[in-house]
Amino acid sequence: MGLIVQKFGGSSVKNAERIFNVAKIVTDTYSAGNDVIVVVSAQGDTTDDLLDKAHEISARPSKRELDVLLSAGEQISSSLLAMAIEKMGYNAVSLTGWQAGFLTDRTHSNARIRRIETERLRSEIEKRKIVIVAGFQGINRNDDISTLGRGGSDTSAVAIAAAMKADICQIYTDVDGVYTADPRIVKSAIKLEEITYDEMLELSSLGAQVLHNRSVEMAKKFDIKLEVLSSLTKAPGTMVKEVTKMEKMLVKGIARDDHIVKFTIKNLQNVPGIAFKIFSAIAGKKINVDIIVQTAANSANLMDMSFTTHEENAELAQEVLGNLLPGFGNGVYIERDDDLSKVSVVGSGMQTNAGIAARMFETLADNQININTISTSEIKISVLIARVDSTKAVVALHDSLIQ
Amino acid sequence: MGLIVQKFGGSSVKNAERIFNVAKIVTDTYSAGNDVIVVVSAQGDTTDDLLDKAHEISARPSKRELDVLLSAGEQISSSLLAMAIEKMGYNAVSLTGWQAGFLTDRTHSNARIRRIETERLRSEIEKRKIVIVAGFQGINRNDDISTLGRGGSDTSAVAIAAAMKADICQIYTDVDGVYTADPRIVKSAIKLEEITYDEMLELSSLGAQVLHNRSVEMAKKFDIKLEVLSSLTKAPGTMVKEVTKMEKMLVKGIARDDHIVKFTIKNLQNVPGIAFKIFSAIAGKKINVDIIVQTAANSANLMDMSFTTHEENAELAQEVLGNLLPGFGNGVYIERDDDLSKVSVVGSGMQTNAGIAARMFETLADNQININTISTSEIKISVLIARVDSTKAVVALHDSLIQ
Repeated sequence: MGLIVQKFGGSSVKNAERIFNVAKIVTDTYSAGNDVIVVVSAQGDTTDDLLDKAHEISARPSKRELDVLLSAGEQISSSLLAMAIEKMGYNAVSLTGWQAGFLTDRTHSNARIRRIETERLRSEIEKRKIVIVAGFQGINRNDDISTLGRGGSDTSAVAIAAAMKADICQIYTDVDGVYTADPRIVKSAIKLEEITYDEMLELSSLGAQVLHNRSVEMAKKFDIKLEVLSSLTKAPGTMVKEVTKMEKMLVKGIARDDHIVKFTIKNLQNVPGIAFKIFSAIAGKKINVDIIVQTAANSANLMDMSFTTHEENAELAQEVLGNLLPGFGNGVYIERDDDLSKVSVVGSGMQTNAGIAARMFETLADNQININTISTSEIKISVLIARVDSTKAVVALHDSLIQ
Repeated sequence: MGLIVQKFGGSSVKNAERIFNVAKIVTDTYSAGNDVIVVVSAQGDTTDDLLDKAHEISARPSKRELDVLLSAGEQISSSLLAMAIEKMGYNAVSLTGWQAGFLTDRTHSNARIRRIETERLRSEIEKRKIVIVAGFQGINRNDDISTLGRGGSDTSAVAIAAAMKADICQIYTDVDGVYTADPRIVKSAIKLEEITYDEMLELSSLGAQVLHNRSVEMAKKFDIKLEVLSSLTKAPGTMVKEVTKMEKMLVKGIARDDHIVKFTIKNLQNVPGIAFKIFSAIAGKKINVDIIVQTAANSANLMDMSFTTHEENAELAQEVLGNLLPGFGNGVYIERDDDLSKVSVVGSGMQTNAGIAARMFETLADNQININTISTSEIKISVLIARVDSTKAVVALHDSLIQ
């Protein structure tokens, strides 16, 4: 008995049969005495189909118009789910982003939610309606439609849970929880009952592709209990929350990301402000960088600066670096590596156990996998390795560190 | 030099090539020094595709949710057209119904526009942007999305022209003007240079399918000059306006409508209030009726009441009549005829020339076409005839009354 936010992804609503499956989950939750707010993504391939239409018109359509176009996808799926719930004899109402009160900043295609004006949501809940909200979208202070970027519907769901003080936010996906490694690769992967926000953040930002990291950050900030579970099985999922029970497992998961590009700027003068110059230009184009490595300067006071970014940013990043190059003097050049993967070991217990890192490097060596770059944080160790080795590395690390 | 509203239908924007064709017309108008507001329908078959999705979920989806679903179609086409105009180097902005300020009554699927709040339109025009408005849609006072029904984008365009005091409203279709008969049927049909609002109203409501009659009514009310022309040829179109130059042509056109159903309630008691009872029940379901005929009562004081309606209302009308039937007493029953067409002769000059009606009936008789029902107004004469004869009737009437 409480207020439950449920989010369903594109594959969960891809056709009429799946929509009725979702409607069953939603109405069962409602019939158990809960208020329910549902957030939906666009159906299956709708977003890709709309992007194709845009690219037939222009290679680089304006982001404002792209947001108008893409937001139609969630508008469509939300109304179809409302129809299915009504067909089952319940009262439902679909709301677009602006109707649900989502106000964002003025960025297009990757907007941040500023606040949710909850009057409409509250009034529909008071009427005991099941509310279906189009995910991924809002409006800015110009009344222009904005979208929240990759994984934005997860963020929509957590934001509603925070604004409405929901008891739980359930994220339904096509896997039934968070695993210690991708179950498609590692047969012995174990489903976790619980995981902390920080561990989940490392796993999601490292390519585990279960939850979008912005949604996890927001859940942590507002202390929203998240549950990751499958819309196709009745199995219990994984709870993401602040305090987990003590577990003997130090390592919570092995993640990998094959969609990275590494850039290295060679022979830079080792002078103050050089890193600022590079990364402020990169940030100015809203490119997120991940691992940054700076080599020690050599005898000529020259050093190399490397960073990784998602492959979708690669062309733009290369353009930014190319524009900076003339300002760096002679002998400076850019290397790009498209053939690396990032493999990471994640777990809160690791920070107090130096043995994990040693075991990780030993395992990779035993499997003849060369390490290109190492990066560590309090709860994870990441390495860059050749992409051809990434599956072998995940399987071997899971065997030696978890099983 | 002025403010021009241009409306393009679904076939004019059905793919990327057609969208660029429209963008060319729009930017040429803009480059000639005009401010331009464009209203677009959904692309080609989008509306039908969305309706199919809805009907996979429910045979009778709620009208509120249907409006949310269908309005996505115009949102998609408006953003695509804006992208094409931007690609050609002009500034454009797409606006959904609510962004463009369309406020409607609370009816769903066939809403009436109450007013347009023009601040946003004006501010974009002041920035010298080409404004693309998603046709067919608005919001009501609950902030729910509403749609304007069949041909609603024509109405959107005329409403904007009225609210913004545009110099002209151009309706681009797949024909290049208003003809004296359907040119696909009557090879010798003549394109009219001018036609009055009243004549156009009769022609459009009689199935000429060029302009939606609500848009013509609104143009007449606010004295908006309309031009009907083709997006695929450069030919001048037909002007629709109040005062036309004197023309010798009495008959402006022959129209036909094959999408009608005729109901007859047989053996009704001829008592006061019987017509009210029937037509208030029909109107209560928002069914428009067209021709109404009541026979004189026979010696038993019984009479028959007939009316026609669009075929899309037939099932609902039959249901309404079925519910009324038990209240009418014994011997009363309902006849339904799905095989009739309405053929009409339209022209302002006709009211003072009784000879037209005589020639019309003579022509039909000469062609062995039996008349089922006759209905007349000041500027038109309509007959119901067997649908198999409707093409023959249009050709013969055009020959004898226009050529």
